[in-house]
Amino acid sequence: MIVIKLGGSKGIDLERFLTDLAGLEPPYVLVHGANVELDALMRELGVEPRLVTSSTGQVSRFTDQRTMDLFLMAYCGKVNKRIVETLQRLGVNAVGLSALDGAIARGRRKPRIRAIENGKSKILDGDYTGTIEAVDGRLIHLLLGNGYVPVLTPPAVSHEGDAINVDGDKLAMELAVALQAERLLVFSNTPGLLTDLEDPSSTVPTVNLDHLDEFLVLAQGRMKKKVLAAADAVRRGVGEVILADANRKDAIRAALAGSGTKIR
Amino acid sequence: MIVIKLGGSKGIDLERFLTDLAGLEPPYVLVHGANVELDALMRELGVEPRLVTSSTGQVSRFTDQRTMDLFLMAYCGKVNKRIVETLQRLGVNAVGLSALDGAIARGRRKPRIRAIENGKSKILDGDYTGTIEAVDGRLIHLLLGNGYVPVLTPPAVSHEGDAINVDGDKLAMELAVALQAERLLVFSNTPGLLTDLEDPSSTVPTVNLDHLDEFLVLAQGRMKKKVLAAADAVRRGVGEVILADANRKDAIRAALAGSGTKIR
Repeated sequence: MIVIKLGGSKGIDLERFLTDLAGLEPPYVLVHGANVELDALMRELGVEPRLVTSSTGQVSRFTDQRTMDLFLMAYCGKVNKRIVETLQRLGVNAVGLSALDGAIARGRRKPRIRAIENGKSKILDGDYTGTIEAVDGRLIHLLLGNGYVPVLTPPAVSHEGDAINVDGDKLAMELAVALQAERLLVFSNTPGLLTDLEDPSSTVPTVNLDHLDEFLVLAQGRMKKKVLAAADAVRRGVGEVILADANRKDAIRAALAGSGTKIR
Repeated sequence: MIVIKLGGSKGIDLERFLTDLAGLEPPYVLVHGANVELDALMRELGVEPRLVTSSTGQVSRFTDQRTMDLFLMAYCGKVNKRIVETLQRLGVNAVGLSALDGAIARGRRKPRIRAIENGKSKILDGDYTGTIEAVDGRLIHLLLGNGYVPVLTPPAVSHEGDAINVDGDKLAMELAVALQAERLLVFSNTPGLLTDLEDPSSTVPTVNLDHLDEFLVLAQGRMKKKVLAAADAVRRGVGEVILADANRKDAIRAALAGSGTKIR
């Protein structure tokens, strides 16, 4: 069983990616984000995205109830259903879900966060962001076992039953662990972990967990987070995590054939 | 098995309705619309809703690709997931789906329609509206059989694999027929079929199919469509259709206890 994560970043040719995906033999689950679409919707509505930095240095989107409405529209509405539509057209019996549906992913909401905004430290109330703590694989198993291809997106659900904004990569990782997937493919608009950021051909082919620290010095920002999360997933039973390039022809095939960075 | 349709009209207290629904013993399916939310989103974005009248006199929303994006946001994003969130909070293991997911409802798209707009007869291209022709009950059965409560909304999928705008009442009716439901409850902001439109206490308690014509003279516009569709559903095997009032305390209980108009 394979879990495939597709980032919601700019410049990914969704139609091409899904056409390649449609050639893959199930069972697999597609997990996606919709950051670009959410930003576009907010801009169109004249709502300024509000990014805050936590006391531990993590940047996140401050998600009040109004932002969550727009989040649901972009992630679960437009992007999730357009992916399902494209897959249906390609003959894949896709079922679009959020991690809220069937309480697939539960997390802890921090209603009050300490954040730095415009250089000032503040206490902010009313944030609906959280960290995934438990994944219930039953609904996904049920769908996979009956010939459906689940297409999953944030939000998740808090212990109190609120929709919470969770990280898409983290959702894919936790799902892969819960399903004990053979492989987790994480696609973004970079070819993998690079030794030289300017040179796409400098992709590190394999990161062995025993030598993780040597590779972590190469990774920065979001990529460091991805490598650490991948290592965690492998330690918790996922066969292999592959960080791969969404922006190429035959993206899925290339990743399965060995391109990208494999974490084992 | 019960199918419950909740209209997307103005002034319905969703929280109260869902709190009452959460007391109902499964299996049941909730089907909903989101017309009011779609209109609100379009207004906010400065997009004028475009209503066209077909040559047979039916008024529908002209749904080009841009409108379909907004349709997906309102129906499948905000409204569907907020309903799922509320039900999850109330302890109901809800799963939100569109009729596109798992190709639950397939329909015929008319890409070119003859319509009257501003008094002029026109041929319009690029409409993604359709009529449901087949419902596949497998996914819904699968969810019901495993303790989930499906929450279903338009769009459906065309034979070519496009998302199509379909009537929510029609979706509920066709689903109830496909599942051979014992009861279909259709909730809107009227108490049922009235003999006097000004007097809510004039609700017709029962419409017998043998005397359908006598009652049809009482119904106008959307209510006539509802009564005709209800009669059709009963002829095709649904035990009973109840047209009931969403705007009251204990709406579900009242409808099951005999208020509203029952079509048998």
